[in-house]
Amino acid sequence: PSRLPAFATHQVGVAGAVVDESAGKVLVVQDKNKTKNAWKFPGGLSDPGENIGATAVREVFEETGVRSEFRSLLSIRQQHRHPNAFGMSDLYAICRLSPLTYRIDFCTQECLRCEWLGVGELAETSSATPVTSRVARLLLFGLERGFDKIDLAMEELPAVYSGVLYQLYHRPLPTQS
Amino acid sequence: PSRLPAFATHQVGVAGAVVDESAGKVLVVQDKNKTKNAWKFPGGLSDPGENIGATAVREVFEETGVRSEFRSLLSIRQQHRHPNAFGMSDLYAICRLSPLTYRIDFCTQECLRCEWLGVGELAETSSATPVTSRVARLLLFGLERGFDKIDLAMEELPAVYSGVLYQLYHRPLPTQS
Repeated sequence: PSRLPAFATHQVGVAGAVVDESAGKVLVVQDKNKTKNAWKFPGGLSDPGENIGATAVREVFEETGVRSEFRSLLSIRQQHRHPNAFGMSDLYAICRLSPLTYRIDFCTQECLRCEWLGVGELAETSSATPVTSRVARLLLFGLERGFDKIDLAMEELPAVYSGVLYQLYHRPLPTQS
Repeated sequence: PSRLPAFATHQVGVAGAVVDESAGKVLVVQDKNKTKNAWKFPGGLSDPGENIGATAVREVFEETGVRSEFRSLLSIRQQHRHPNAFGMSDLYAICRLSPLTYRIDFCTQECLRCEWLGVGELAETSSATPVTSRVARLLLFGLERGFDKIDLAMEELPAVYSGVLYQLYHRPLPTQS
Protein backbone atom coordinates (compact mmCIF):
# COMPACT_ATOMS: atom_id res chain seq x y z
CA PRO A 1 0.00 0.00 0.00
CA SER A 2 1.05 3.57 -0.66
CA ARG A 3 2.23 5.60 2.29
CA LEU A 4 1.02 8.84 0.68
CA PRO A 5 -2.17 10.36 2.03
CA ALA A 6 -5.17 9.11 0.09
CA PHE A 7 -7.29 11.38 -2.05
CA ALA A 8 -10.07 10.80 -4.53
CA THR A 9 -8.81 10.51 -8.11
CA HIS A 10 -11.84 9.10 -9.92
CA GLN A 11 -15.41 9.98 -10.58
CA VAL A 12 -17.70 7.01 -11.08
CA GLY A 13 -20.31 6.99 -13.83
CA VAL A 14 -22.87 4.26 -14.32
CA ALA A 15 -25.08 3.30 -17.25
CA GLY A 16 -28.05 0.95 -17.07
CA ALA A 17 -28.93 -1.48 -19.87
CA VAL A 18 -32.58 -2.33 -19.12
CA VAL A 19 -33.32 -5.53 -21.02
CA ASP A 20 -36.85 -6.65 -21.82
CA GLU A 21 -35.99 -10.33 -22.27
CA SER A 22 -39.33 -11.46 -23.69
CA ALA A 23 -39.26 -8.81 -26.44
CA GLY A 24 -35.47 -8.91 -26.99
CA LYS A 25 -35.34 -5.15 -26.55
CA VAL A 26 -33.23 -2.72 -24.55
CA LEU A 27 -33.89 0.84 -23.43
CA VAL A 28 -31.71 3.44 -25.17
CA VAL A 29 -31.56 7.23 -25.38
CA GLN A 30 -29.99 9.91 -27.53
CA ASP A 31 -28.53 12.88 -25.69
CA LYS A 32 -30.01 16.25 -26.57
CA ASN A 33 -26.81 18.26 -26.51
CA LYS A 34 -24.40 16.15 -28.56
CA THR A 35 -23.54 16.89 -32.17
CA LYS A 36 -23.76 13.25 -33.19
CA ASN A 37 -27.03 11.62 -32.17
CA ALA A 38 -25.84 8.17 -31.22
CA TRP A 39 -27.84 5.68 -29.18
CA LYS A 40 -26.53 5.03 -25.70
CA PHE A 41 -27.71 3.59 -22.40
CA PRO A 42 -29.15 6.07 -19.91
CA GLY A 43 -26.78 6.86 -17.05
CA GLY A 44 -24.84 9.44 -15.12
CA LEU A 45 -22.55 10.09 -12.19
CA SER A 46 -22.84 8.35 -8.84
CA ASP A 47 -23.85 10.55 -5.95
CA PRO A 48 -21.46 10.40 -2.98
CA GLY A 49 -22.05 7.21 -1.01
CA GLU A 50 -24.30 5.70 -3.68
CA ASN A 51 -23.82 2.11 -4.86
CA ILE A 52 -23.25 1.38 -8.55
CA GLY A 53 -26.56 -0.47 -8.92
CA ALA A 54 -28.51 2.29 -7.18
CA THR A 55 -27.01 4.90 -9.52
CA ALA A 56 -28.06 2.87 -12.56
CA VAL A 57 -31.66 2.45 -11.35
CA ARG A 58 -31.94 6.14 -10.38
CA GLU A 59 -30.46 7.53 -13.60
CA VAL A 60 -32.59 5.26 -15.78
CA PHE A 61 -35.71 6.47 -13.99
CA GLU A 62 -34.72 10.14 -14.12
CA GLU A 63 -33.95 10.04 -17.83
CA THR A 64 -36.60 7.65 -19.14
CA GLY A 65 -39.37 7.28 -16.52
CA VAL A 66 -38.84 3.48 -16.53
CA ARG A 67 -38.58 1.68 -13.17
CA SER A 68 -36.07 -1.17 -13.02
CA GLU A 69 -34.04 -3.37 -10.73
CA PHE A 70 -30.34 -4.24 -10.67
CA ARG A 71 -29.28 -7.65 -12.00
CA SER A 72 -25.54 -7.64 -12.67
CA LEU A 73 -22.42 -5.73 -13.62
CA LEU A 74 -21.48 -6.21 -17.30
CA SER A 75 -18.48 -4.02 -17.99
CA ILE A 76 -16.08 -1.46 -16.56
CA ARG A 77 -14.32 1.27 -18.52
CA GLN A 78 -11.37 3.26 -17.17
CA GLN A 79 -10.55 6.54 -18.86
CA HIS A 80 -8.04 9.25 -17.98
CA ARG A 81 -8.86 12.80 -18.96
CA HIS A 82 -5.33 14.08 -19.21
CA PRO A 83 -2.83 11.28 -19.81
CA ASN A 84 0.38 11.61 -17.83
CA ALA A 85 -1.02 14.53 -15.86
CA PHE A 86 -2.74 14.91 -12.52
CA GLY A 87 -6.22 15.11 -14.10
CA MET A 88 -9.27 13.36 -12.75
CA SER A 89 -9.98 9.93 -14.20
CA ASP A 90 -13.26 8.13 -14.53
CA LEU A 91 -14.53 4.64 -14.05
CA TYR A 92 -17.71 3.91 -15.94
CA ALA A 93 -19.72 0.82 -15.00
CA ILE A 94 -22.40 -0.69 -17.24
CA CYS A 95 -25.06 -2.68 -15.41
CA ARG A 96 -27.77 -5.03 -16.59
CA LEU A 97 -31.20 -4.13 -15.21
CA SER A 98 -34.62 -5.75 -15.50
CA PRO A 99 -37.64 -3.55 -16.20
CA LEU A 100 -40.40 -3.22 -13.61
CA THR A 101 -42.39 -0.80 -15.81
CA TYR A 102 -42.30 -0.28 -19.59
CA ARG A 103 -43.92 3.07 -20.34
CA ILE A 104 -41.41 5.69 -21.48
CA ASP A 105 -41.74 9.25 -20.14
CA PHE A 106 -38.34 10.66 -20.96
CA CYS A 107 -36.63 13.80 -19.69
CA THR A 108 -36.83 16.31 -22.56
CA GLN A 109 -34.11 18.46 -20.95
CA GLU A 110 -31.57 15.65 -21.30
CA CYS A 111 -32.81 13.41 -24.09
CA LEU A 112 -33.73 13.92 -27.72
CA ARG A 113 -35.11 10.41 -28.16
CA CYS A 114 -35.78 7.37 -26.00
CA GLU A 115 -36.88 3.95 -27.29
CA TRP A 116 -37.06 0.25 -26.61
CA LEU A 117 -34.77 -0.93 -29.41
CA GLY A 118 -34.12 -4.49 -30.55
CA VAL A 119 -30.84 -5.73 -29.06
CA GLY A 120 -29.78 -7.14 -32.43
CA GLU A 121 -30.55 -3.84 -34.15
CA LEU A 122 -28.53 -1.92 -31.56
CA ALA A 123 -25.60 -4.32 -32.01
CA GLU A 124 -25.53 -3.63 -35.75
CA THR A 125 -26.36 0.06 -36.13
CA SER A 126 -23.60 2.59 -36.74
CA SER A 127 -25.65 5.13 -34.75
CA ALA A 128 -24.35 4.01 -31.37
CA THR A 129 -21.28 4.80 -29.32
CA PRO A 130 -18.54 2.12 -29.49
CA VAL A 131 -19.12 1.00 -25.90
CA THR A 132 -22.88 0.76 -26.53
CA SER A 133 -22.30 -1.40 -29.62
CA ARG A 134 -19.98 -3.66 -27.69
CA VAL A 135 -22.39 -4.08 -24.78
CA ALA A 136 -25.24 -4.70 -27.23
CA ARG A 137 -23.22 -7.60 -28.66
CA LEU A 138 -22.66 -8.90 -25.12
CA LEU A 139 -26.41 -8.64 -24.41
CA LEU A 140 -27.25 -10.45 -27.65
CA PHE A 141 -24.91 -13.25 -26.60
CA GLY A 142 -26.60 -13.26 -23.18
CA LEU A 143 -30.11 -13.40 -24.67
CA GLU A 144 -29.10 -16.32 -26.88
CA ARG A 145 -26.91 -18.30 -24.50
CA GLY A 146 -27.95 -17.13 -21.03
CA PHE A 147 -26.98 -14.06 -19.06
CA ASP A 148 -24.83 -16.26 -16.81
CA LYS A 149 -22.30 -16.13 -19.69
CA ILE A 150 -21.85 -12.36 -19.37
CA ASP A 151 -22.83 -11.37 -15.82
CA LEU A 152 -20.76 -10.42 -12.82
CA ALA A 153 -22.89 -11.23 -9.79
CA MET A 154 -23.00 -8.86 -6.82
CA GLU A 155 -22.87 -9.86 -3.19
CA GLU A 156 -22.90 -7.68 -0.09
CA LEU A 157 -20.43 -8.56 2.62
CA PRO A 158 -19.59 -6.88 5.95
CA ALA A 159 -16.23 -5.13 6.27
CA VAL A 160 -13.97 -6.90 8.79
CA TYR A 161 -13.46 -4.04 11.21
CA SER A 162 -16.31 -1.56 10.65
CA GLY A 163 -19.06 -4.04 9.78
CA VAL A 164 -20.18 -1.64 7.04
CA LEU A 165 -21.48 -3.53 4.01
CA TYR A 166 -19.47 -3.47 0.81
CA GLN A 167 -20.41 -4.80 -2.62
CA LEU A 168 -18.27 -7.43 -4.29
CA TYR A 169 -18.68 -8.21 -8.00
CA HIS A 170 -17.19 -11.26 -9.72
CA ARG A 171 -18.11 -14.27 -11.83
CA PRO A 172 -20.45 -16.63 -9.99
CA LEU A 173 -18.77 -19.60 -8.34
CA PRO A 174 -20.35 -23.02 -8.99
CA THR A 175 -21.59 -23.27 -5.39
CA GLN A 176 -23.25 -19.87 -5.66
CA SER A 177 -25.22 -20.59 -8.80
CA PRO B 1 -26.28 12.67 -16.87
CA SER B 2 -26.07 14.91 -13.86
CA ARG B 3 -26.01 18.65 -14.46
CA LEU B 4 -23.96 19.18 -11.30
CA PRO B 5 -20.28 19.93 -11.72
CA ALA B 6 -18.24 16.75 -11.61
CA PHE B 7 -15.75 16.01 -8.88
CA ALA B 8 -13.76 12.96 -7.88
CA THR B 9 -15.54 10.85 -5.28
CA HIS B 10 -13.55 7.62 -5.36
CA GLN B 11 -10.04 6.43 -4.83
CA VAL B 12 -9.07 3.34 -6.79
CA GLY B 13 -7.09 0.55 -5.19
CA VAL B 14 -5.79 -2.48 -7.03
CA ALA B 15 -4.56 -5.87 -5.88
CA GLY B 16 -2.66 -8.37 -8.01
CA ALA B 17 -3.14 -12.13 -7.74
CA VAL B 18 0.01 -13.50 -9.38
CA VAL B 19 -0.77 -17.13 -10.25
CA ASP B 20 1.94 -19.69 -10.95
CA GLU B 21 -0.27 -22.04 -12.94
CA SER B 22 2.17 -24.94 -13.17
CA ALA B 23 2.67 -25.05 -9.39
CA GLY B 24 -0.91 -24.10 -8.50
CA LYS B 25 0.40 -21.32 -6.27
CA VAL B 26 -0.36 -17.64 -5.80
CA LEU B 27 1.73 -14.82 -4.32
CA VAL B 28 0.41 -13.52 -1.00
CA VAL B 29 1.64 -11.14 1.72
CA GLN B 30 0.85 -10.28 5.30
CA ASP B 31 0.87 -6.59 6.17
CA LYS B 32 3.33 -5.54 8.85
CA ASN B 33 1.14 -3.03 10.63
CA LYS B 34 -2.14 -4.87 11.08
CA THR B 35 -3.22 -6.49 14.32
CA LYS B 36 -4.51 -9.60 12.57
CA ASN B 37 -1.94 -11.18 10.27
CA ALA B 38 -4.14 -12.35 7.44
CA TRP B 39 -2.91 -13.34 3.99
CA LYS B 40 -3.84 -10.94 1.23
CA PHE B 41 -2.79 -10.10 -2.31
CA PRO B 42 -0.20 -7.34 -2.69
CA GLY B 43 -1.65 -4.06 -3.89
CA GLY B 44 -2.21 -0.39 -3.28
CA LEU B 45 -3.65 2.83 -4.62
CA SER B 46 -3.52 3.84 -8.27
CA ASP B 47 -1.38 6.84 -9.07
CA PRO B 48 -3.18 9.61 -10.97
CA GLY B 49 -3.52 8.65 -14.63
CA GLU B 50 -2.40 5.05 -14.03
CA ASN B 51 -4.32 2.12 -15.51
CA ILE B 52 -5.64 -0.63 -13.23
CA GLY B 53 -3.33 -3.27 -14.69
CA ALA B 54 -0.27 -1.04 -14.38
CA THR B 55 -1.04 -0.37 -10.71
CA ALA B 56 -1.28 -4.10 -10.01
CA VAL B 57 2.05 -4.87 -11.71
CA ARG B 58 3.80 -1.94 -9.99
CA GLU B 59 2.48 -2.64 -6.50
CA VAL B 60 3.27 -6.36 -6.74
CA PHE B 61 6.86 -5.53 -7.69
CA GLU B 62 7.28 -2.86 -5.00
CA GLU B 63 5.98 -5.14 -2.24
CA THR B 64 7.35 -8.53 -3.29
CA GLY B 65 10.13 -8.04 -5.86
CA VAL B 66 8.26 -10.30 -8.32
CA ARG B 67 7.85 -9.12 -11.94
CA SER B 68 4.54 -9.95 -13.58
CA GLU B 69 2.19 -9.09 -16.41
CA PHE B 70 -1.51 -8.26 -16.49
CA ARG B 71 -3.92 -10.98 -17.62
CA SER B 72 -7.46 -10.06 -16.57
CA LEU B 73 -9.76 -8.32 -14.15
CA LEU B 74 -11.33 -10.75 -11.65
CA SER B 75 -13.40 -8.71 -9.24
CA ILE B 76 -14.47 -5.20 -8.22
CA ARG B 77 -15.39 -4.11 -4.71
CA GLN B 78 -17.17 -0.84 -3.93
CA GLN B 79 -16.99 0.45 -0.38
CA HIS B 80 -18.19 3.70 1.17
CA ARG B 81 -16.29 5.02 4.13
CA HIS B 82 -19.10 6.92 5.75
CA PRO B 83 -22.50 5.62 4.69
CA ASN B 84 -25.06 8.32 4.02
CA ALA B 85 -22.42 11.02 4.30
CA PHE B 86 -20.23 12.87 1.84
CA GLY B 87 -17.17 10.73 2.57
CA MET B 88 -14.81 9.43 -0.08
CA SER B 89 -15.59 5.97 -1.42
CA ASP B 90 -13.27 3.39 -2.87
CA LEU B 91 -13.29 0.99 -5.74
CA TYR B 92 -10.91 -1.92 -5.32
CA ALA B 93 -10.05 -4.01 -8.37
CA ILE B 94 -8.48 -7.48 -8.15
CA CYS B 95 -6.48 -8.51 -11.21
CA ARG B 96 -5.03 -11.81 -12.32
CA LEU B 97 -1.36 -11.56 -13.24
CA SER B 98 1.17 -14.05 -14.62
CA PRO B 99 4.64 -14.20 -13.08
CA LEU B 100 7.68 -13.25 -15.16
CA THR B 101 10.06 -13.90 -12.25
CA TYR B 102 9.61 -16.07 -9.15
CA ARG B 103 12.21 -14.98 -6.58
CA ILE B 104 10.70 -13.13 -3.61
CA ASP B 105 12.49 -10.05 -2.26
CA PHE B 106 9.78 -8.44 -0.22
CA CYS B 107 9.54 -4.95 1.23
CA THR B 108 10.20 -5.30 4.95
CA GLN B 109 8.74 -1.86 5.64
CA GLU B 110 5.33 -2.96 4.40
CA CYS B 111 5.24 -6.74 4.73
CA LEU B 112 5.72 -9.17 7.59
CA ARG B 113 5.66 -12.23 5.36
CA CYS B 114 5.48 -13.01 1.65
CA GLU B 115 5.04 -16.48 0.13
CA TRP B 116 3.96 -18.50 -2.87
CA LEU B 117 1.00 -20.28 -1.28
CA GLY B 118 -1.08 -23.12 -2.73
CA VAL B 119 -4.30 -21.70 -4.16
CA GLY B 120 -6.31 -24.50 -2.50
CA GLU B 121 -4.65 -23.81 0.84
CA LEU B 122 -5.42 -20.08 0.55
CA ALA B 123 -9.05 -20.87 -0.30
CA GLU B 124 -9.41 -22.90 2.90
CA THR B 125 -7.37 -21.07 5.51
CA SER B 126 -9.06 -18.85 8.06
CA SER B 127 -5.95 -16.62 8.01
CA ALA B 128 -7.05 -14.59 4.99
CA THR B 129 -9.28 -11.58 4.49
CA PRO B 130 -12.80 -12.45 3.23
CA VAL B 131 -12.14 -10.97 -0.22
CA THR B 132 -8.87 -12.91 -0.47
CA SER B 133 -10.66 -16.18 0.41
CA ARG B 134 -13.33 -15.50 -2.16
CA VAL B 135 -10.84 -14.70 -4.91
CA ALA B 136 -8.80 -17.80 -3.97
CA ARG B 137 -11.95 -19.88 -4.58
CA LEU B 138 -12.41 -18.15 -7.93
CA LEU B 139 -8.77 -18.88 -8.83
CA LEU B 140 -9.12 -22.52 -7.80
CA PHE B 141 -12.15 -22.79 -10.09
CA GLY B 142 -10.11 -21.13 -12.84
CA LEU B 143 -7.15 -23.49 -12.37
CA GLU B 144 -9.47 -26.50 -12.57
CA ARG B 145 -11.87 -25.40 -15.30
CA GLY B 146 -10.00 -22.70 -17.20
CA PHE B 147 -9.45 -19.03 -16.44
CA ASP B 148 -11.91 -18.16 -19.23
CA LYS B 149 -14.60 -19.07 -16.67
CA ILE B 150 -13.59 -16.26 -14.31
CA ASP B 151 -11.79 -13.59 -16.38
CA LEU B 152 -12.90 -10.21 -17.61
CA ALA B 153 -10.79 -9.50 -20.68
CA MET B 154 -9.39 -6.03 -21.30
CA GLU B 155 -9.31 -4.19 -24.59
CA GLU B 156 -8.03 -0.72 -25.39
CA LEU B 157 -10.23 1.45 -27.59
CA PRO B 158 -9.89 5.07 -28.75
CA ALA B 159 -12.31 7.64 -27.31
CA VAL B 160 -14.65 9.02 -30.01
CA TYR B 161 -13.71 12.67 -29.78
CA SER B 162 -10.26 12.85 -28.13
CA GLY B 163 -8.79 9.64 -29.56
CA VAL B 164 -7.29 8.96 -26.12
CA LEU B 165 -7.22 5.24 -25.38
CA TYR B 166 -9.51 3.86 -22.71
CA GLN B 167 -9.63 0.38 -21.24
CA LEU B 168 -12.81 -1.67 -21.47
CA TYR B 169 -13.27 -4.82 -19.36
CA HIS B 170 -16.02 -7.39 -19.92
CA ARG B 171 -16.60 -11.08 -20.53
CA PRO B 172 -15.04 -12.25 -23.79
CA LEU B 173 -17.41 -12.44 -26.74
CA PRO B 174 -17.31 -15.68 -28.78
CA THR B 175 -15.66 -13.91 -31.72
CA GLN B 176 -12.98 -12.45 -29.46
CA SER B 177 -11.92 -15.73 -27.87
